Amino acid sequence: MEMVGFVGLGRMGRPMASNLCRKGFRLVVNDVNPAAVQELESLQARGAASAAEVAGQAGIVVTMLPNSAVVREVVAGPDGILAHARPGSLVMDMSTVSPETTDELAALARARGIGFVDAPVGRLASHADKAESLFMVGASEDDFARVKPLLDGMGSTIFHCGPVGSGTRTKLVNNYLAVTSCQLNAEALALSQRLGLDLERTLEVLYGTTAVNGQLKIAWPSKVLAGDVEPGFTIDLAHKDLTLVSEAAHAARVPMPILAAAREAFSTARARGFGTKDFSAMVDALCDLAGIEKPRLRR
Amino acid sequence: MEMVGFVGLGRMGRPMASNLCRKGFRLVVNDVNPAAVQELESLQARGAASAAEVAGQAGIVVTMLPNSAVVREVVAGPDGILAHARPGSLVMDMSTVSPETTDELAALARARGIGFVDAPVGRLASHADKAESLFMVGASEDDFARVKPLLDGMGSTIFHCGPVGSGTRTKLVNNYLAVTSCQLNAEALALSQRLGLDLERTLEVLYGTTAVNGQLKIAWPSKVLAGDVEPGFTIDLAHKDLTLVSEAAHAARVPMPILAAAREAFSTARARGFGTKDFSAMVDALCDLAGIEKPRLRR
Amino acid sequence: MEMVGFVGLGRMGRPMASNLCRKGFRLVVNDVNPAAVQELESLQARGAASAAEVAGQAGIVVTMLPNSAVVREVVAGPDGILAHARPGSLVMDMSTVSPETTDELAALARARGIGFVDAPVGRLASHADKAESLFMVGASEDDFARVKPLLDGMGSTIFHCGPVGSGTRTKLVNNYLAVTSCQLNAEALALSQRLGLDLERTLEVLYGTTAVNGQLKIAWPSKVLAGDVEPGFTIDLAHKDLTLVSEAAHAARVPMPILAAAREAFSTARARGFGTKDFSAMVDALCDLAGIEKPRLRR
Amino acid sequence: MEMVGFVGLGRMGRPMASNLCRKGFRLVVNDVNPAAVQELESLQARGAASAAEVAGQAGIVVTMLPNSAVVREVVAGPDGILAHARPGSLVMDMSTVSPETTDELAALARARGIGFVDAPVGRLASHADKAESLFMVGASEDDFARVKPLLDGMGSTIFHCGPVGSGTRTKLVNNYLAVTSCQLNAEALALSQRLGLDLERTLEVLYGTTAVNGQLKIAWPSKVLAGDVEPGFTIDLAHKDLTLVSEAAHAARVPMPILAAAREAFSTARARGFGTKDFSAMVDALCDLAGIEKPRLRR
Repeated sequence: MEMVGFVGLGRMGRPMASNLCRKGFRLVVNDVNPAAVQELESLQARGAASAAEVAGQAGIVVTMLPNSAVVREVVAGPDGILAHARPGSLVMDMSTVSPETTDELAALARARGIGFVDAPVGRLASHADKAESLFMVGASEDDFARVKPLLDGMGSTIFHCGPVGSGTRTKLVNNYLAVTSCQLNAEALALSQRLGLDLERTLEVLYGTTAVNGQLKIAWPSKVLAGDVEPGFTIDLAHKDLTLVSEAAHAARVPMPILAAAREAFSTARARGFGTKDFSAMVDALCDLAGIEKPRLRR
Repeated sequence: MEMVGFVGLGRMGRPMASNLCRKGFRLVVNDVNPAAVQELESLQARGAASAAEVAGQAGIVVTMLPNSAVVREVVAGPDGILAHARPGSLVMDMSTVSPETTDELAALARARGIGFVDAPVGRLASHADKAESLFMVGASEDDFARVKPLLDGMGSTIFHCGPVGSGTRTKLVNNYLAVTSCQLNAEALALSQRLGLDLERTLEVLYGTTAVNGQLKIAWPSKVLAGDVEPGFTIDLAHKDLTLVSEAAHAARVPMPILAAAREAFSTARARGFGTKDFSAMVDALCDLAGIEKPRLRR
Repeated sequence: MEMVGFVGLGRMGRPMASNLCRKGFRLVVNDVNPAAVQELESLQARGAASAAEVAGQAGIVVTMLPNSAVVREVVAGPDGILAHARPGSLVMDMSTVSPETTDELAALARARGIGFVDAPVGRLASHADKAESLFMVGASEDDFARVKPLLDGMGSTIFHCGPVGSGTRTKLVNNYLAVTSCQLNAEALALSQRLGLDLERTLEVLYGTTAVNGQLKIAWPSKVLAGDVEPGFTIDLAHKDLTLVSEAAHAARVPMPILAAAREAFSTARARGFGTKDFSAMVDALCDLAGIEKPRLRR
Repeated sequence: MEMVGFVGLGRMGRPMASNLCRKGFRLVVNDVNPAAVQELESLQARGAASAAEVAGQAGIVVTMLPNSAVVREVVAGPDGILAHARPGSLVMDMSTVSPETTDELAALARARGIGFVDAPVGRLASHADKAESLFMVGASEDDFARVKPLLDGMGSTIFHCGPVGSGTRTKLVNNYLAVTSCQLNAEALALSQRLGLDLERTLEVLYGTTAVNGQLKIAWPSKVLAGDVEPGFTIDLAHKDLTLVSEAAHAARVPMPILAAAREAFSTARARGFGTKDFSAMVDALCDLAGIEKPRLRR
């Protein structure tokens, strides 16, 4: 089995790499944080001093980094992964980046005879802990087959969305719906509260019609509606995703007025101190703004 | 069993009244359209020349009328139902009206010793045909018990939302979510199309995460995504509902920026000739606007 | 000279009627507030017990009332002005109402051989005090000539906008621009403050380019930018005007996304207690929301 | 008099540099387009093979380049201006860039003992031709005095907005107002047209109240309202400016809902083929969308 490189051991990367170690993959890892590297070494991973060193030793290099700029630097920088990767190796970027970033890196990799796969992550860090992540994968059929065992080691739901770039793009569309649903629900429940409706009875109706959405039915009952606004996924990160979607939409000349309005609502929530709360707390932000009692399920 | 009055035999009222006749209720009916009255007479209903005449003969009077203004006239006008209703009788308005209308009529009824229930209808006319409507009911416990057999005769899902006025208010919240989801989905799928994603694969992902919503998963696959934009519920009617929600939100001082943006999107769709299409065709309206291929499922 | 009727002696109507009295017009007046009638009687106006009585005595009846519903009742109600007006007389409505209201009343008047003019008021109550109002007049040429002396007695700037209905419509367009400019300026100055720019220098630039607008250059320096948010025109009234514009735009199928966004901003300001402030205080509302120092000119 | 370097001889830079030559400044110039360099050489400027060569010869280096990325490369790249500039020299960037770009370049310059001034341009290319540009300048008092003669040679209105970075920031605020006013006016005039109002009479009213703005009164009568939509400033460029403002606003957590709505309107106009028209043609884009006759002044 080929050696797996892993660069980026943050809140998502660490459990993902750890799960691979536990399932018997041989890993060589790197991160700017030495403690994270040591944690993986305790699971029999080999620590490397740089991304370049990782690239020199691995057949597949996974990157899980904070944003487009960091990914570009680490993958395509002068001393980056592509500069040191072995012919026939493959880079799988699992970070959340812009489609342009994915396309550029894939082209650079191709020019050097290196494979490229984009496989951003759905679901939360808590799912990564349990190897229950969802992955949206953009890859050729062959590359998909090559990374599939790795993905199975880190997650429970794997979608092959299409050729390289499809993973990143599908994630944009997916997160647009999920994140914007939170503001949609916030408006609906703030209105409901102000109109004096009973929360449980109202939800019972909404859950029984096509008005329902996944956030309202699956995510919210155990988060904001239960009074838990500790972040699974923060309003700040949701806002960052909406910014990526907005950039893609404007580049593609797709008018998205609800996106624009939702993004301002997230900006308002951040301006009022809700940035580090769970994104379901958008309803708290709106209720706070308008002087409305927050919706909470009876116990 | 007490006589049931039914005023308003349009696209929704006719099948609802018909179902009651078929199930053995005794009806006295009225409509501005004589043909509709005759149709009910063929089912053993008694035709009446006016709403006043209906009111004089019935213990419960159902109204199913086009908008707030007509309901006010027919129920509370000088020669209306309340002026001729018998003491102890009950009016159940099933029209889609503003909360203010419901509240005013309920107060007028109460002052005359007449019961009042608001029970607007969820789902489509095609459901009414099969007695599979969903009703959101605002009523006292006693009044709810009194109208329950009637509701069971016309629909399959009955929600008692709370006291008088709760039905109308719950419907506003419900329809806000359902209608606005259509524009949300329109933006997501237009972006998806422009980004070159495969529709089937993308939907498979969306259906597997909290990005999903009832319109996208339940309603759209057999409507716009199958190429069917014949109206179950028109964009014009959806726009009318958003206007009711907007009025309620502004009266209640609940800022709803997504609502506002969605309402302009429906206005745009109407300006471009999509008003009489099914409300799932919002995605066609956006794709047409931006020169994007419409999303259609492979057959 | 024909007798002038005046119905509606509120904050705007009282000074307007008073100015007519002072300039020698003979008035018969009515209001729901007896004190307002007495004040006019002290200026030699004749008090009347009802709008009907006014109509019976006057050649021209001016109405200056709070909203469409009141105007409809007073002008077209069973005991209203049209029911008692003399053949050949003329009604001039100066209230702010919807175009539909103007059109309906004009049609009812025409059917009875009574003239109708719509002449809503621009500028503030303080201008009315000094007979410096601006009027936007919808009238036939003959009717305009007939009411011109009256308008000259109450204001300093008279625009004949076109046939009946043009005054009301022009006011909608005018107030849309003026009111929405306030939110536009609010966003620009909030950003400017947050970016650390010097207010005086920034305004000097804006006043020297096509970025300028009348609110920013003419109205704001002596209002919010000077720390004066006592209402010339309240945020509540501005919001009401935006609602009239929104209704007209949706009826006419004109998508107006900035209008929609601005209306939610006014709703937010009202939800946070700014409704009774001057409409220039929209910038204070936004700065308060986002934790930004309010823009104030140095003294 | 010190030698003036000029890098970037595009549609704006060429006339600006030419005017300096004509007024007796000694110039050394560079551009990627050799023809542009030759044109300046015919005015006695010295052509240079690179920005580095310009930097080595000049006391003040002016940059006038297309966007933030190019400015960063040319000024701060490995073979850029800062790497070759003489101690005590000064870089004046007149491009439209993000505040972050200005701040970063200013800091890099300062660290090398080189002065930095940001002086973006207001008004159009046609003004630059006549040395009638407007400049918004961010500079220390000393640096401002040093560049003032140059600015006087290229423009007629010079604003010293504050310290370095103030020019770029002021331009953002200024262009936000100017650009968004176009969509505001588009909505107002589209509504006015649909309501059947006379354009000339309506403008006469608007020009006489605080509803007026600089675009409507100064720019539009000779552009779109006269049927001229040849670009002074294109919808594409206006959209680019709104994107810069949006990025700044979101970074600064200033909710700007009108900005967001306006940006989508520009996106819609671009999607429908209006991107290369003058930005006053936003009203044509909206009227086209909604099937409304375009507003044109009678001749």
